[in-house]
Amino acid sequence: MALIVQKFGGSSVANAERVFNVAEIITNTFKQGNDVVVVLSAQGDTTDDLIEKANEINPKPSKREMDMLLSTGEQISIALMAMAIEKLGFPVVSLTGWQVGMKTDSTYGNARIKKVEPERIQSELGTGKIVLVAGFQGINKYDDITTLGRGGSDTSAVALAVALKADLCQIYTDVDGIYTADPRVVKDAKKLEEITYDEMLELASLGAQVMHNRSVEMAKRYSVHLEVLSSFTRNPGTKIKEVPQMEKMHVSGVASDKRTARISLIGLEDVPGIAFKIFSVLAQKKINVDIILQSIGRGNTKDISFTVADNSLNAAVEMLNANRDIIGFKDITVNDRICKLSIVGAGMVNNAGVAAKMFEALSNASVNIQMISTSEIKISVLIDRDDEERALKAVHAMFFNN
Amino acid sequence: MALIVQKFGGSSVANAERVFNVAEIITNTFKQGNDVVVVLSAQGDTTDDLIEKANEINPKPSKREMDMLLSTGEQISIALMAMAIEKLGFPVVSLTGWQVGMKTDSTYGNARIKKVEPERIQSELGTGKIVLVAGFQGINKYDDITTLGRGGSDTSAVALAVALKADLCQIYTDVDGIYTADPRVVKDAKKLEEITYDEMLELASLGAQVMHNRSVEMAKRYSVHLEVLSSFTRNPGTKIKEVPQMEKMHVSGVASDKRTARISLIGLEDVPGIAFKIFSVLAQKKINVDIILQSIGRGNTKDISFTVADNSLNAAVEMLNANRDIIGFKDITVNDRICKLSIVGAGMVNNAGVAAKMFEALSNASVNIQMISTSEIKISVLIDRDDEERALKAVHAMFFNN
Repeated sequence: MALIVQKFGGSSVANAERVFNVAEIITNTFKQGNDVVVVLSAQGDTTDDLIEKANEINPKPSKREMDMLLSTGEQISIALMAMAIEKLGFPVVSLTGWQVGMKTDSTYGNARIKKVEPERIQSELGTGKIVLVAGFQGINKYDDITTLGRGGSDTSAVALAVALKADLCQIYTDVDGIYTADPRVVKDAKKLEEITYDEMLELASLGAQVMHNRSVEMAKRYSVHLEVLSSFTRNPGTKIKEVPQMEKMHVSGVASDKRTARISLIGLEDVPGIAFKIFSVLAQKKINVDIILQSIGRGNTKDISFTVADNSLNAAVEMLNANRDIIGFKDITVNDRICKLSIVGAGMVNNAGVAAKMFEALSNASVNIQMISTSEIKISVLIDRDDEERALKAVHAMFFNN
Repeated sequence: MALIVQKFGGSSVANAERVFNVAEIITNTFKQGNDVVVVLSAQGDTTDDLIEKANEINPKPSKREMDMLLSTGEQISIALMAMAIEKLGFPVVSLTGWQVGMKTDSTYGNARIKKVEPERIQSELGTGKIVLVAGFQGINKYDDITTLGRGGSDTSAVALAVALKADLCQIYTDVDGIYTADPRVVKDAKKLEEITYDEMLELASLGAQVMHNRSVEMAKRYSVHLEVLSSFTRNPGTKIKEVPQMEKMHVSGVASDKRTARISLIGLEDVPGIAFKIFSVLAQKKINVDIILQSIGRGNTKDISFTVADNSLNAAVEMLNANRDIIGFKDITVNDRICKLSIVGAGMVNNAGVAAKMFEALSNASVNIQMISTSEIKISVLIDRDDEERALKAVHAMFFNN
């Protein structure tokens, strides 16, 4: 008998039929003798509908009131799921964020979890009940409702797994695990049985979009065993835990991310402090910079190129132009027709051959590389967006076929 | 400067336009220098929509989970209203039932308020904010959400007025006060400037349907000054307080109630204890009996007739037939084509002439009276439902036209 935390996303509980599908997964886990704590997101479009209702009244409401509004979505989900589980004849109780003592800071709309007081859940589990918890929400020191921002329900689930010392935290989504590449693009992509936290972190930030980094980081910090699996199949998913296979060269997957754009500043003075000026200007607007490439100085000028999230592009360019005199560049160019292609793998840093194999695959597929960036467990290249699919297939085939 | 509690029903906040209409009433009250605490119901059909969602999953959910579900409706209302008031540029905060310490017993679906802890509201008022409170909901000793049942939001408002020692509790509905008769039927019905608690109680139970008795009873017990008025006009409403005009004959209004049905038990043995048997059988099923009429015994048998709410009729007949041997009646007859017509007035008991005038009016209009019931401040007659409108107009004209 184990204590298992299960999290189901909004699409998994979008209508009555899907609610019963999930109720079956939950009660099957319970029937096997496990203690089960379930975190639920709002049903399907509920959150969007509530946002639309708010917009109609006030396009710029306070974040506190927005949280008061949005937190109802998850509350509706847990109540309906409890009714479904009652219908199936199992003991169940639903609890909101404040009822489970999900204490957060006061950053409405994007609150951070400070601690979880597990007593209520433990006492409900002690009476033999399945416990349903509203994800995405918490309560601050003023007893006001907060929401956790993007990836919030995943984070709720991991935080509960930490507080309850759960044996396993299962994240149910609409994909049945982590693949070596996006299976919609690369038909022979393989599902991974397991993957390390760091690999998962790189894959998430590279656009694999299965779990939000924040929850994976928390799971890593507290060594929570995660499993990503689908609520629509009954297949085993991908386990995420700290079991790197250091012995062999190990590439876990290939990911591509289109939501990126490149900015190049041309003709910068080749003196110390230029990079600092550029990136502190961008930091003022909280614009995150990803890959940075600085050319070797030619004469007394140099160029700096870097990528930003595509939805930050306009703000970044505006900010740079406004500070043109301070930074001192001759020209600024922009390319939003790019794509970042990455391979991720824990053993990579010990294997010089990995980068070479990736570049060979791209060369064979006639894909031009614009920028390169490497980390301990990742190699990313910036390529033309039109080359994305061809490059993804070529690199995947190089590492995973045969 | 006064402390005013205002309550707005679901139809008053049904859409964005109406939300802003109510926001204007609230902020006008606030601009006049008052402390304002507002209780809101769920928007329009929200509660019905939520019940339908629940029914789709489980037609017999636990009441605890139903309360978890339904309480979201009022939470949505307060958040949206707060956004509207923010848009108008006023300081505001919305609070749920548990945030305002609305402590109830644990009768889910029909909870009774035990006490209100006013500290949170008082501290928000102290910082100059308009305070919005979710009606209809509370929290029990287990920290679980409860709902207050029928008339719940009115009761929330009165309970808050008591706890905060408010100067006035305004109940905004879709009628602009209490009339001498239903103005949809009697065109020259007059709006009352004021009325006593007891008169209001009789009118409410007689189908005037403006406020639920429960909230009027609480207002009477704690001498809360009530005002009933419309959110759609800016007219003054009807004040409800303890100012009976004992000197003159005083009929406040005429009301009729169709939601009633008559049951007659024929051929009962004329011995003591029969009435007890009948009404204890009905009490087992929590069926309330209204008017009771017992015939004078003829020989060794008698008949008893009584009225019940029409939606209890089938259950009552079923229960009586099941206990036929115990009660011992020869026949049971039912009439669901009846209507209860009543006149209400505080000074009535001291004026024998009032009943006579009422019966004269009915006689002139050729309305047959089936049963009569009187109380300190009320005379009710049971008549054929087809006579309702004619009787209502005749009785109203008798007392109010001249």
